[in-house]
Amino acid sequence: MFSAVKKKFISNINPAKILFMSVIALGTMAFDAIETPFGKIDKIVGGSATYVAYAASHLITPVQQISIVGADFPEEEMNELKSRGVQLDGVEIVPGKKSFFWSGKYHMDMNTRDTLITDLNVLADFNPKVPDSYQGAEFLMLGNLMPGLQISVIQQLKTRPKLIVLDTMNFWMDAALEDLMKVLTMIDVLLINDTEARQLSSEFSLVKAAKKILEMGPKYLIIKKGEHGALLFHDNHVFFAPALPLEDVFDPTGAGDSFAGGFIGHLAKTKNISFENMKTAIIVGSAMASFCVEKFGPQRLKEITRHDIDVRLEEFVQLVNFDIDIV
Amino acid sequence: MFSAVKKKFISNINPAKILFMSVIALGTMAFDAIETPFGKIDKIVGGSATYVAYAASHLITPVQQISIVGADFPEEEMNELKSRGVQLDGVEIVPGKKSFFWSGKYHMDMNTRDTLITDLNVLADFNPKVPDSYQGAEFLMLGNLMPGLQISVIQQLKTRPKLIVLDTMNFWMDAALEDLMKVLTMIDVLLINDTEARQLSSEFSLVKAAKKILEMGPKYLIIKKGEHGALLFHDNHVFFAPALPLEDVFDPTGAGDSFAGGFIGHLAKTKNISFENMKTAIIVGSAMASFCVEKFGPQRLKEITRHDIDVRLEEFVQLVNFDIDIV
Repeated sequence: MFSAVKKKFISNINPAKILFMSVIALGTMAFDAIETPFGKIDKIVGGSATYVAYAASHLITPVQQISIVGADFPEEEMNELKSRGVQLDGVEIVPGKKSFFWSGKYHMDMNTRDTLITDLNVLADFNPKVPDSYQGAEFLMLGNLMPGLQISVIQQLKTRPKLIVLDTMNFWMDAALEDLMKVLTMIDVLLINDTEARQLSSEFSLVKAAKKILEMGPKYLIIKKGEHGALLFHDNHVFFAPALPLEDVFDPTGAGDSFAGGFIGHLAKTKNISFENMKTAIIVGSAMASFCVEKFGPQRLKEITRHDIDVRLEEFVQLVNFDIDIV
Repeated sequence: MFSAVKKKFISNINPAKILFMSVIALGTMAFDAIETPFGKIDKIVGGSATYVAYAASHLITPVQQISIVGADFPEEEMNELKSRGVQLDGVEIVPGKKSFFWSGKYHMDMNTRDTLITDLNVLADFNPKVPDSYQGAEFLMLGNLMPGLQISVIQQLKTRPKLIVLDTMNFWMDAALEDLMKVLTMIDVLLINDTEARQLSSEFSLVKAAKKILEMGPKYLIIKKGEHGALLFHDNHVFFAPALPLEDVFDPTGAGDSFAGGFIGHLAKTKNISFENMKTAIIVGSAMASFCVEKFGPQRLKEITRHDIDVRLEEFVQLVNFDIDIV
């Protein structure tokens, strides 16, 4: 008999391990205005690094943030992040300027959206600096951002992290392909969605797309398919992670970043970057994404407890649980 | 520790059990002309009952076919089916007339297709008769066909089968909704795709759609999502089955029918219609569908051996295999 999903109840993790297993998260910290079929909100805290930090800090601390904000970014949000073990030494605050602002409207299927406004504001002059106190981090999460800035952060690190995960989007495939292709040779895990995988590879079949993309540099490729789950490719191996079927997806903003935060958070927490453990990390990431979409902004990620996460992980186990007899 | 996917190597099944565990399959036996991005074929044997029979007969015999063909349907195909334990007493052969003919063209994504020609021919006057020798069958697979004919077959059976599975399509939701709603109250398991589930329920969320559809009659609902896998709903339970990521889907024709054949074949073979066993049956169905799409028509279903099926099932186990620690 062979068990394909094993669930173990293990005891506490050695706190000493957690202390030195830091994760650097590069990305935006921003304001969003969001309209979905379920509601509308004019101004809420968002940004890729914000979501990554809220998701990852449930699993591992410190999360060492690299970002840029204007004077308008709420101090209470900064304090909330700090209280969760997120270090903000790498977050530049620009006096007299505004934070990055994004406004978007989701269609009924929630997989497609129109960007209404992109006000770069402070992001236009972002030149990320890695603080000395971040040197030696073993995990690096490069959130969706100009590929040139992602490269800059890698180059500033004196010791290469054990694992570098990169999130990007189709916009950079159009606007900064050269830098994107360069950064792909410097990372370990690439996170993109199915449309982006097809664009990057010029292949319709995701299996063929994955083969081509794995030749561009990354050793692991995660293709996110929204409500249809995610696929992990590595060499000739593939893993299919489900998405939790939800009655309502209230606001998909930040789901991909929450996924990334849960993914790298689990790997850092367990100090294990094997393919087998990446499968589990994808389930943890999917759980974080499933919370994220339940309310506007990062609200749900702030509310949930370790118990909520465990209950959700249990739901994922049940969702794919089956017995099979090979006669 | 909890195992969510168990694989057992069990010994042979009692042949006596197989003998009396027959499956009736109602559906079309036809000719298809198919165009895909990979090729074109002008005339190949197809039809829902044909695919169901080829898939199910790998798992259970006899499969008791109910269909109608013209004088042009190849005798060698009939003999091939018979040699696999498919009984054809319920297949009416109409002299001097032509078999049902369907022609379609698939788009690049292979999930959408245009129907080019539908020549009903013998199907226009089909009035299915259940042979006496089929009475007592414990499993009934109602392939995609006019809902009125599906009702007629149920009504002709003196003993209600242990499990009635129904496949249908959006066409009947438009053209024969009243009959369709009636047959839904008479069956156990409904198989439809995501678009059809949304149309039938007027709900976009598949979770909400499933709740509404389960109130229409079926106790189990399987929503097929093509390359994105399938969902099984029952009461408040849900199961997510992956589709095998394939390099190329050569021809999707018959994939849904092959899935249905594998699904009911597994349930009949194991004499177990529990929710737990339906999960496994969906994996077996998915494996059959994954073979079907590798070549034009039912060709691959004829070629594969029990060993091929076991290897494919093993791939499905690996595909969703993960370990998780709940701290």
